[in-house]
Amino acid sequence: MTDLILGLDTFGDVPEDDTGRLVSHAAAIRQVVEEAVLADELGVDAIALGEHHRPEYSISTPETVLAGIAGRTSRIRLGSGVTVLSSDDPVRVFQRFATVDALSHGRAEVILGRGSFTESFPLFGYDLSDYDVLFEEKLDLFVKLLDEQPVTWSGTTRPALTGAEVFPRTESGRLTTWVGVGGSPQSVVRTARHGLPLMLAIIGGQPERFAPYVELYRRAAEQLGTVAHPVGMHSPGFVADTDEQAKELFYPHYKTQRDRIGALRGWPPLRRAEFDAEVATGSLYVGAPETVARKIARAVKALGVGRFDLIYTVGAQPVSPRLRAVELFGAKVLPMVRDLMTEK
Amino acid sequence: MTDLILGLDTFGDVPEDDTGRLVSHAAAIRQVVEEAVLADELGVDAIALGEHHRPEYSISTPETVLAGIAGRTSRIRLGSGVTVLSSDDPVRVFQRFATVDALSHGRAEVILGRGSFTESFPLFGYDLSDYDVLFEEKLDLFVKLLDEQPVTWSGTTRPALTGAEVFPRTESGRLTTWVGVGGSPQSVVRTARHGLPLMLAIIGGQPERFAPYVELYRRAAEQLGTVAHPVGMHSPGFVADTDEQAKELFYPHYKTQRDRIGALRGWPPLRRAEFDAEVATGSLYVGAPETVARKIARAVKALGVGRFDLIYTVGAQPVSPRLRAVELFGAKVLPMVRDLMTEK
Repeated sequence: MTDLILGLDTFGDVPEDDTGRLVSHAAAIRQVVEEAVLADELGVDAIALGEHHRPEYSISTPETVLAGIAGRTSRIRLGSGVTVLSSDDPVRVFQRFATVDALSHGRAEVILGRGSFTESFPLFGYDLSDYDVLFEEKLDLFVKLLDEQPVTWSGTTRPALTGAEVFPRTESGRLTTWVGVGGSPQSVVRTARHGLPLMLAIIGGQPERFAPYVELYRRAAEQLGTVAHPVGMHSPGFVADTDEQAKELFYPHYKTQRDRIGALRGWPPLRRAEFDAEVATGSLYVGAPETVARKIARAVKALGVGRFDLIYTVGAQPVSPRLRAVELFGAKVLPMVRDLMTEK
Repeated sequence: MTDLILGLDTFGDVPEDDTGRLVSHAAAIRQVVEEAVLADELGVDAIALGEHHRPEYSISTPETVLAGIAGRTSRIRLGSGVTVLSSDDPVRVFQRFATVDALSHGRAEVILGRGSFTESFPLFGYDLSDYDVLFEEKLDLFVKLLDEQPVTWSGTTRPALTGAEVFPRTESGRLTTWVGVGGSPQSVVRTARHGLPLMLAIIGGQPERFAPYVELYRRAAEQLGTVAHPVGMHSPGFVADTDEQAKELFYPHYKTQRDRIGALRGWPPLRRAEFDAEVATGSLYVGAPETVARKIARAVKALGVGRFDLIYTVGAQPVSPRLRAVELFGAKVLPMVRDLMTEK
């Protein structure tokens, strides 16, 4: 358990400045870079950036931002969370991450997923009715690319390749690749079939609900004769100096964002009581460092995972408290979680 | 003429280390970053990285490398040279360069082209017989994206867009965009039609041969009622402490690379006399700083261009002389050219 990886994830939400105005996309991107630099200095193990194509998020191309972080950091792993492989080209994705890997001396890790938003489908000319086959086929091709040998592949969702060579090659010979899964057993089994590590997105409810997925992943890998890697999980939250501050800084922006998505998906508006319940026993890691650390340690132990990433922005939380959240996560939550993991 | 832009371009050729062994793709990418950092320190105005998909080049995704350079530099413009738009998606290209623009506080500039190699077509599933229509249509879409307004577009080479919004937006409201042209009058006129700046690739023969293209660009812009921007040119070369050293360091690797391409294109092997003639009166800017500076100033004056980029690697020139070439270009060639430009 000493190898527990603790990371920070963001979609590059456009934050408010300290006067309450939304900053530009460009400033939001640079904010993420500054947060990653601070996280690296404080020993946070990983940062992962998610791909979105909506005005409230600044990151549509995670690996370009990761490349910007690469040269200003020295230890932190540089991941996506997730790269929407279904609507991208596996060859291009491989090339970009292999380049980030070069820039960062081997710290790149791509986390491939289907995405929980659908904007990328019309934007890049894909049909949502191909949601499953797009990911299935493209993951298959991506796994072939990982061998860094000439690739021959054909499918229905991308032009065929015949002995294609793809550059640049990585120094290690293998790009670190995860699959991000929201809650589909089929996706868990597919990940095990490819022998790839699994990252679970747990964004609501009690984390224990996901124990069957962890078990399914291990059992599937065993039956399929592949390797079951340590499982990762990521969940949203916010760290401030006190529990009360954390909740008050996080909640209004979280509610705005939740209700914005909810309006698209037919959810009722978020009520404060629901929020408080999620913070108390669900999957919102909001509070003072000790509160968040205890909650993380509990979830990690309950699920037996080897990695926990905190999605540290959900909505327009202002820039100064956001940077403070990263600081508290690195300086306080991390050592507390590591201590707690040694307890029975 | 005091505004003359002087830059360095590379395709990320894989160099030899100082013992004569080719370095890895990853090391080659990091070499380019180090060279860009040095160029920035020395006041070089621009660096441009070309996209290729061949084993002898490390850069298949220029903007990812540019993002890596962004955080370690402060003044140098970060460009591609070229981005092969024909086989890429204009939306993705825009997103990546807008992200580099954010990371670099507005220093990104994309140079769009059709590419002089054809590897990207089968790799990304395009038909070479669509060479013209692919670039024509995709440039048309890219120009629409530059307005940073909802885009409605349809064509034959990419799925249609209806009121699509593309993020991130730039701070300036307009991404700097050039078109790279090898020698097609149609391409020159198209560039003028879109009101974009023109970058001429002049890789052999007397630069004066290209004067008609500069004139055509200006005349076309006038007739079409668009703006004729200062024209740029880029040509290959190498700077060393003496003329003799520059030629001996450059030639063997240049010949290997030229003959490798020539074998694909039906050219006879390069003879030393041809090389010497190109250095003397053609488009190879090889020599001591003063030699190269005089040659650049002559070409800039002859063509009336506002930008000259030296393609400072062609083949596997070793890492130490390469870094020295960048140093000499920044520290010596630059001020000499600027002095020469003030002479009649």
